Amino acid sequence: MLSAEILKEFVQIVGSEHVLTSPEDLIAYSYDGTSVEYCPDAVVSPFNTEQVSRVMQVCYREGICVVPRGMASGLAGGAVPVSGGVSLCLTRMNRVLNLDTENMMVRVEAGIITADLQAQVESVGLFYPPDPSSVRHSTIGGNVACNAGGARCLKYGVTRDYVMGLTVVLSDGRILQTGTKAIKNVTSYDLKNLFVGSEGTLGIITEVLLKLIPKPEFARTAMAVYPLLENASVTVNNVLRAGVLPATIELMDNTTIETIEEYLHLGLPTNVAAILIIEVDGSDEETVTKQIETIGQVCRASGASDVRLAKTETERADLWRGRRSVLPSLVRRGPDQLSEDISLPRAAIPEAIRRIKAISEKYGLTIAVFGHAGDGNLHPSILYDKRDPEQVRRMEQASRDIFNIAIELGGTLSGEHGIGVLKLPFLRLALSPIEIELMQAIKHVFDPKGILNPGKKFPYHIKN
Amino acid sequence: MLSAEILKEFVQIVGSEHVLTSPEDLIAYSYDGTSVEYCPDAVVSPFNTEQVSRVMQVCYREGICVVPRGMASGLAGGAVPVSGGVSLCLTRMNRVLNLDTENMMVRVEAGIITADLQAQVESVGLFYPPDPSSVRHSTIGGNVACNAGGARCLKYGVTRDYVMGLTVVLSDGRILQTGTKAIKNVTSYDLKNLFVGSEGTLGIITEVLLKLIPKPEFARTAMAVYPLLENASVTVNNVLRAGVLPATIELMDNTTIETIEEYLHLGLPTNVAAILIIEVDGSDEETVTKQIETIGQVCRASGASDVRLAKTETERADLWRGRRSVLPSLVRRGPDQLSEDISLPRAAIPEAIRRIKAISEKYGLTIAVFGHAGDGNLHPSILYDKRDPEQVRRMEQASRDIFNIAIELGGTLSGEHGIGVLKLPFLRLALSPIEIELMQAIKHVFDPKGILNPGKKFPYHIKN
Repeated sequence: MLSAEILKEFVQIVGSEHVLTSPEDLIAYSYDGTSVEYCPDAVVSPFNTEQVSRVMQVCYREGICVVPRGMASGLAGGAVPVSGGVSLCLTRMNRVLNLDTENMMVRVEAGIITADLQAQVESVGLFYPPDPSSVRHSTIGGNVACNAGGARCLKYGVTRDYVMGLTVVLSDGRILQTGTKAIKNVTSYDLKNLFVGSEGTLGIITEVLLKLIPKPEFARTAMAVYPLLENASVTVNNVLRAGVLPATIELMDNTTIETIEEYLHLGLPTNVAAILIIEVDGSDEETVTKQIETIGQVCRASGASDVRLAKTETERADLWRGRRSVLPSLVRRGPDQLSEDISLPRAAIPEAIRRIKAISEKYGLTIAVFGHAGDGNLHPSILYDKRDPEQVRRMEQASRDIFNIAIELGGTLSGEHGIGVLKLPFLRLALSPIEIELMQAIKHVFDPKGILNPGKKFPYHIKN
Repeated sequence: MLSAEILKEFVQIVGSEHVLTSPEDLIAYSYDGTSVEYCPDAVVSPFNTEQVSRVMQVCYREGICVVPRGMASGLAGGAVPVSGGVSLCLTRMNRVLNLDTENMMVRVEAGIITADLQAQVESVGLFYPPDPSSVRHSTIGGNVACNAGGARCLKYGVTRDYVMGLTVVLSDGRILQTGTKAIKNVTSYDLKNLFVGSEGTLGIITEVLLKLIPKPEFARTAMAVYPLLENASVTVNNVLRAGVLPATIELMDNTTIETIEEYLHLGLPTNVAAILIIEVDGSDEETVTKQIETIGQVCRASGASDVRLAKTETERADLWRGRRSVLPSLVRRGPDQLSEDISLPRAAIPEAIRRIKAISEKYGLTIAVFGHAGDGNLHPSILYDKRDPEQVRRMEQASRDIFNIAIELGGTLSGEHGIGVLKLPFLRLALSPIEIELMQAIKHVFDPKGILNPGKKFPYHIKN
């Protein structure tokens, strides 16, 4: 509980309509994209960096926990206030501050929805490539805090690859500006990349300077069907070795395909091991066309039993409809699902999927595997019924086994969702004691009172 | 001076032939690519990570300064032992530990020469793109420590973009392994990127896991001649907006061109404002040819008075001969030269060059400007005579003025050479007190005794 005096200070900073404390308001800020739920003591919505700074000064002085929050679409519980305190909602800070077409960069506030940012830069012929599935209901601040990815990472990289500079309010309220519009910069330690992926535990990201690229004008898509999983996986490297760098190589295993067909009847081939959906893009139509044809040849030579090249925009949309239907189909089949986010060396994908299928059998739970095969990032999704404690127990065991597989095969716990609270129990599988010790020491540098998003990312205890 | 007991410990770890203490040996380790010279107290050359760890345990216990060193090709004094102590020479650690063609990654020891690494991966059809000019006489460890760049960064990025994981010996001798072969990874704070560009001040990098790409098989080159500097600069963005991403866009101003012609008579056009050398590469010959033709058209449309497209490999080599002759020509004209490394927002290049020309006139010193126009990284090179104290004074003033220009135009002190000792006096122009304070706190986490490469990168004082 926050005292009336402190709430009054918040009101003085952001205005009374931007400080929420009624139970019904707090409930709306108690959850994210997971089933984790904890109420904050207050929701404070600042309008600019200076207001964030003043709110943080109060919280630092009083030792109040602060959980930064954008659209709360996170899949690891990162924006849920597990220790109460202030839910610092940044969605009012959604302005484009500077769109610099000459240097191809844009400076935005952290609370802008990523799809809105994309639309604005595309209107002047530029392009912001990272495209997490949540792109229409997640903010760039959250994307930076989790180093969001998406389907286009194979060619275009992740959020980190586009962050040129950040404005960050530190735990004590001081404002850090780091990075410039100079593309190459080795002047400072890389402070910027410490914040990217730190899930709100090191500072409040309030403004982001992003690199843009010219918008690719043409895209072509192919769907390849595989009787053997290995061949789908081998195709990825064969495509790259053929000198073509697709924007996306998405994989769906047989369970995923069957789930989609069961609910949506899209006409996808069943009784196959896997499907790859591969898309190339670029600014020269002839080159793009040639590349998709090369890809078709490589897929066949790598063991695809069928390859469909989209010849029209409608055919292209049809191919993508299957991939886009994965989550809705899983949700319909459910009743509940836990979608994991393991990241693997690319070559380990077939073995990982084989082992996940064994886990599915062992625990008697349906596990659909799909994801970004091009960069080794899979989303094994466990279907279960949360009303059945016994199923929940099996789901939890299966989940732990999947993390173990990722580590055994040289991978890690999360490619793009973050650790949040959900993966915290598994962190020591992936990180050494030295890494965790260094993280704790760095955390202490940035947040000596431990008020920033406590209980997230890694086990942290305040030093005395 | 190090005691006989300590030297004996080093000998026990690395063998007597790998501990040097004679004055003539120490002199050979007292300098790098600059005119900064300080002798170490001993040179110790370990053979593997474990020996580095044991050497560091001794140095940590005794509070002995350690300066890691590869080929000492640095241009900022970073490998010079300004406080004496141990010069830790890593050139014996030059093995390729694992070349993984399936995942397209290579793990190497830090002391491998970058060109040797490139040759080995190219022999299996893979490619390591970063190509600092020092590529034949610098090590990958040094490249990581300085976040080296080169001419191909526009398309392919810098060293940082290829580092997937590091093995680092911490100041107390503990061994940190961080990163995996999983391309996407948001499990830990980004420890890896803290070491990239830290210039040996946070730990001893002993092994590096690098991402590779398929080797592009075809390259085509064009040289465009400009009567107006602005037009050369505008061309860069126009090329990118035309949807072509060249591997390199190199710029030489009229002073650079005249210097080359004066000494080498290559037949370059004089009486022009600037030349751009633009190269495209890829795995499809037709596409590459088409791209260079598009570039030729864009150059002409952007104000080039002449564009030469290399039709053969010999013609291509001829075009590059001019660019490669810049440094030898400047050295011949000299007698001494200071080559800076400012990095700017791309659009600021014409204004930067104009202001640098005014500085050249103000101080009566020849300043040649060339560099990587595509990513805004320029190397203004001041010619002077170090035997003339008055010229040295003017050179120093001109140098400071150039740094001020970089900062005023939104750029920074270094794009790829690092800060070392040479740029230390200018650091506060580029970084805020908060940034420097955070760097100091991070340094204290990794190197509490301040023994790692002291006096480099930023002003650091040991906390008591």
